[in-house]
Amino acid sequence: MIKQLSISAPCQGLHEITREIAAAVSDSGLQEGLCTVFIKHTSASLIIQENADPSAARDLEQWLNRLVSENDQRYTHTSEGPDDMPAHIKSTLTATSVSVPVINGTWQGLFLWEHRRANMQRTVIVHTGA
Amino acid sequence: MIKQLSISAPCQGLHEITREIAAAVSDSGLQEGLCTVFIKHTSASLIIQENADPSAARDLEQWLNRLVSENDQRYTHTSEGPDDMPAHIKSTLTATSVSVPVINGTWQGLFLWEHRRANMQRTVIVHTGA
Amino acid sequence: MIKQLSISAPCQGLHEITREIAAAVSDSGLQEGLCTVFIKHTSASLIIQENADPSAARDLEQWLNRLVSENDQRYTHTSEGPDDMPAHIKSTLTATSVSVPVINGTWQGLFLWEHRRANMQRTVIVHTGA
Repeated sequence: MIKQLSISAPCQGLHEITREIAAAVSDSGLQEGLCTVFIKHTSASLIIQENADPSAARDLEQWLNRLVSENDQRYTHTSEGPDDMPAHIKSTLTATSVSVPVINGTWQGLFLWEHRRANMQRTVIVHTGA
Repeated sequence: MIKQLSISAPCQGLHEITREIAAAVSDSGLQEGLCTVFIKHTSASLIIQENADPSAARDLEQWLNRLVSENDQRYTHTSEGPDDMPAHIKSTLTATSVSVPVINGTWQGLFLWEHRRANMQRTVIVHTGA
Repeated sequence: MIKQLSISAPCQGLHEITREIAAAVSDSGLQEGLCTVFIKHTSASLIIQENADPSAARDLEQWLNRLVSENDQRYTHTSEGPDDMPAHIKSTLTATSVSVPVINGTWQGLFLWEHRRANMQRTVIVHTGA
């Protein structure tokens, strides 16, 4: 019913985790119900993205990078690097948990949105229930 | 337990779907539990709005339109029209799924927030569970 | 399974409610499952914050205050004070409901993010289920 997954996010940007989540849903045996995905971090988030066109993902990332600048002298939380405070802000503006109805075992595209620039290891928790 | 609804969103802006969701909750027979609403699109979103004053909704829409401009030469994903990439960004900044506890069968106001300008047909999935 | 909590938010900013939510989860007897927290307001929101460093919370609040200005002559919804319309916008950009998997009864840090400046009393609803 609950499964923890460890996901590699080698760089800033969208990393597809659809296959991992679909496998967890499949393992649970759930055919119809609700799948809730939760990311155990506050500097990365979750995003549903149907669009196969990579230009949309790239525009999205660049837009958010322009909105939440790294070079803001007003940040005081700077001990963890210049990309850390922007990552917290970005995670607040996007989703930490996503609940998706499961019908006939099928599932939509889900991405882990890494907001830090370093190679990160992230934990995602999947809950399935009727 | 799961019901798919088809919702008309004739123009950009907030479209109330409280009645449709309440009917789905009522049909499920759920008196106390959790209702999760999910929108199967990435250029529209869901928003809970208690305020009956239409000026708040209008200010909200106009503020988001100013934040996410259509006329940005830096967008590269432009093949689906000038309002498409802004719609994807807006949907990322707002909610794709909303989970609302149901008590005594009552329900709050929920709106589909259409970010595209054309007349769209949207699918919303309602999951109810104890 | 469903519990309503009344939370005092004496000023604008993040107010930790982890203890209250953990108590509600504990009262429910749930050891493994899903806890969904919902805030019954559209001028306050919920935020998960792991970081114990108060500088991150302060930077976050100040960044959002700069993004959503109180002094915008284009707002028309002004009858409830200068901080009301910004509070609605901020609540739209952040989370109204958060679903967190519960494992061995443990729980992460959750905060009520008050967007109004007055002393407010807020209602938060906690749903727990297997």
